[in-house]
Amino acid sequence: MFNVQEIKKDFAALQQQVNGKSLVYLDSAASSQIPKQVAEAMSQYYATSHSNVHRGVHTLGERATSAYEGAREKVARFLNAPKVENIVFTRGTTESINLVAYAYGLHKLQAGDGIVVTLLEHHSNLVPWQQIAKIKGAKLYMVELTEEGHLNLEQYRSFLKQGNIKIVAVTQASNVLGTVTPTKQIVQEAHAAGAVVVVDAAQSAPHMAIDVQDLDADFLAASGHKMLGPTGIGFLYGKSELLDDMEPFQMGGSMIGLVDYYESNWAEVPAKFEAGTPNIVGAVGLAAAIDYLNALGMENVHQHEQQLLAYAWDRLSQVEGIELYGPRQPRTGLIAFNIDDTHPHDVSTVLDAEGVAVRAGHHCAQPLHKWLHTAATNRASFYIYNDEQDIDRLVAALQKVKEMFGYVTR
Amino acid sequence: MFNVQEIKKDFAALQQQVNGKSLVYLDSAASSQIPKQVAEAMSQYYATSHSNVHRGVHTLGERATSAYEGAREKVARFLNAPKVENIVFTRGTTESINLVAYAYGLHKLQAGDGIVVTLLEHHSNLVPWQQIAKIKGAKLYMVELTEEGHLNLEQYRSFLKQGNIKIVAVTQASNVLGTVTPTKQIVQEAHAAGAVVVVDAAQSAPHMAIDVQDLDADFLAASGHKMLGPTGIGFLYGKSELLDDMEPFQMGGSMIGLVDYYESNWAEVPAKFEAGTPNIVGAVGLAAAIDYLNALGMENVHQHEQQLLAYAWDRLSQVEGIELYGPRQPRTGLIAFNIDDTHPHDVSTVLDAEGVAVRAGHHCAQPLHKWLHTAATNRASFYIYNDEQDIDRLVAALQKVKEMFGYVTR
Repeated sequence: MFNVQEIKKDFAALQQQVNGKSLVYLDSAASSQIPKQVAEAMSQYYATSHSNVHRGVHTLGERATSAYEGAREKVARFLNAPKVENIVFTRGTTESINLVAYAYGLHKLQAGDGIVVTLLEHHSNLVPWQQIAKIKGAKLYMVELTEEGHLNLEQYRSFLKQGNIKIVAVTQASNVLGTVTPTKQIVQEAHAAGAVVVVDAAQSAPHMAIDVQDLDADFLAASGHKMLGPTGIGFLYGKSELLDDMEPFQMGGSMIGLVDYYESNWAEVPAKFEAGTPNIVGAVGLAAAIDYLNALGMENVHQHEQQLLAYAWDRLSQVEGIELYGPRQPRTGLIAFNIDDTHPHDVSTVLDAEGVAVRAGHHCAQPLHKWLHTAATNRASFYIYNDEQDIDRLVAALQKVKEMFGYVTR
Repeated sequence: MFNVQEIKKDFAALQQQVNGKSLVYLDSAASSQIPKQVAEAMSQYYATSHSNVHRGVHTLGERATSAYEGAREKVARFLNAPKVENIVFTRGTTESINLVAYAYGLHKLQAGDGIVVTLLEHHSNLVPWQQIAKIKGAKLYMVELTEEGHLNLEQYRSFLKQGNIKIVAVTQASNVLGTVTPTKQIVQEAHAAGAVVVVDAAQSAPHMAIDVQDLDADFLAASGHKMLGPTGIGFLYGKSELLDDMEPFQMGGSMIGLVDYYESNWAEVPAKFEAGTPNIVGAVGLAAAIDYLNALGMENVHQHEQQLLAYAWDRLSQVEGIELYGPRQPRTGLIAFNIDDTHPHDVSTVLDAEGVAVRAGHHCAQPLHKWLHTAATNRASFYIYNDEQDIDRLVAALQKVKEMFGYVTR
């Protein structure tokens, strides 16, 4: 295991006071903080190696290209991808999924084809499929939940049995309920029915070891900024036979082979999907973030969060009037909750005054909140730099909420 | 005017030696270096303000949102946009143009409609239009060049007269010939013919004052990393009546209004075009870069580069066997050239050994190079941190090229 007190020292943002209290940051599911090692890797890159990639023969151009392609290799290893070329750099999970929706869905789907989504999806793995379905005349099928907050696999199977399902879009871990889905099983059954699977790993890649070959996922997307990296960088993993066969998404420099007046052809994967100057420094920062996580060990990261989750669930359950959402297991290190009839924004505001940062809102999952019969929730999410004292601070701050809003109904 | 020696001190990358020689960086048209003020703004953001934007009510969420939206305001002022909402953040020029191609072109164009492009375009303002034309059955028209390297405006007008032109895609400054196009006039004539104009400002925004209201451009795109900012951030300016009326491009969080199982509606502009977590730190860096440029004054930046260009043109013209491409005026501070029959990659390699970084290749402008009857060129490009000594170093290094390749033909 690792020493959280030592880890905290690496994060400049966690050293600060907010509203006169030392900051307790419980919003890593929205965006994690970055350690000094990531900041230093980016500064170092700018001081010694920055230039545009791929098209330069001078020293800085070569250094930049090597840093950028080295980052791709690091992501490939992090996911146990068969080849470096399976990794496409994007702005984040959302762009990764849009890339698949446009470059695969728009060209491969026919009218009447089916796309399966789930009620656990973040809008980023739902709305692109609604839109592609509308454009192509395809049909969308929504897998709902068991009472506990797991996917209704019977319903999933009934959709697959229809015979028209071409794409299954599923999250590996819910950003609201924390639910970890049986992704490997979902993939197997989808493949048996002739569908490809797009896995949203935004909430899993930062928190558990992922092996895309073991999962047998066709596509898998995640974001750097949720796994200790900078904003503006993320990745798409795709199987080679699919990526090779796809149309490009964005068009421009670096993704072309030959360009003539009226037509062009495309570069090989992954360049085909990376039009224009990429976020080079973002990739450098992501690589440093992966180094940081690898040094801790993803198994240790997972175990730490699970311990914290158990402690938090236990402590929060004892708060009078609280409702905790989602299943007990398997789940990731986040807990969405409501307390009494106090509006989540009011709860968050009071917590913030106590130096405790949680997120309030629909967390980009409106259909799921409809199912929960609430417009919004609070969400406390944990990462490597959180400890039991942070949970204690959260619980103490919730007592302040109860003192302030004890008589108010939302 | 400003003191280049003082400016150089702000750029850590320019303090280094490359191949044992102090670095002369003449590749800013590909990507500029960043000053310490930009690096510090980004470090400061991560140390004090990082969180996800828009959806948080806690202190860091508010600071991040305020930093991000403040950057948008800075870009709007930099371009003299009528409203902050005219600015959409993207990864860069390429994504900005793809956004227009997909969200405007794909939905508005009909079979038989015409798109005018020019031979000066970077692939990023050509290939998206080829692709959209192919998908929609629209026709592409290529404005060619006068012998000197200016747009053939007679040909442009003949295209407009056909009556079917709906989109004109034109660069404000060529990334190879340096040609500054009569953009304002092109816009006027396009509007008279009922077409909207998409201006590629990647090579102009860093180097001259831009007033989008004076230009009357419908869309204008540029990249942060070519104007002292970080990689992974750029912007699209668009007129409100056009942006408001457009479909979204990417789908996901933040760009939605209401999301239900099978359909959704969209947020207001600019959120409608910014799905998912944006490159927040990139926007912060871009804002600091704009501050830096504003402190120098864009008129001064332009004047400095014009003086350097005149000096460079004069000195380079005296190198035996050199061919300089593009018109004398109006042009920006870059010069593409070939020398004797030496391959540009060999030229660049020798220059690099002398510590001089220039770019060699087709510079993402293959059709233009076909017109130049050469597969590739060298390109030296100047920015605020370059001075006459840098040009002298380039010229001296070219003498080394002549010594080494005097007898070799490419």
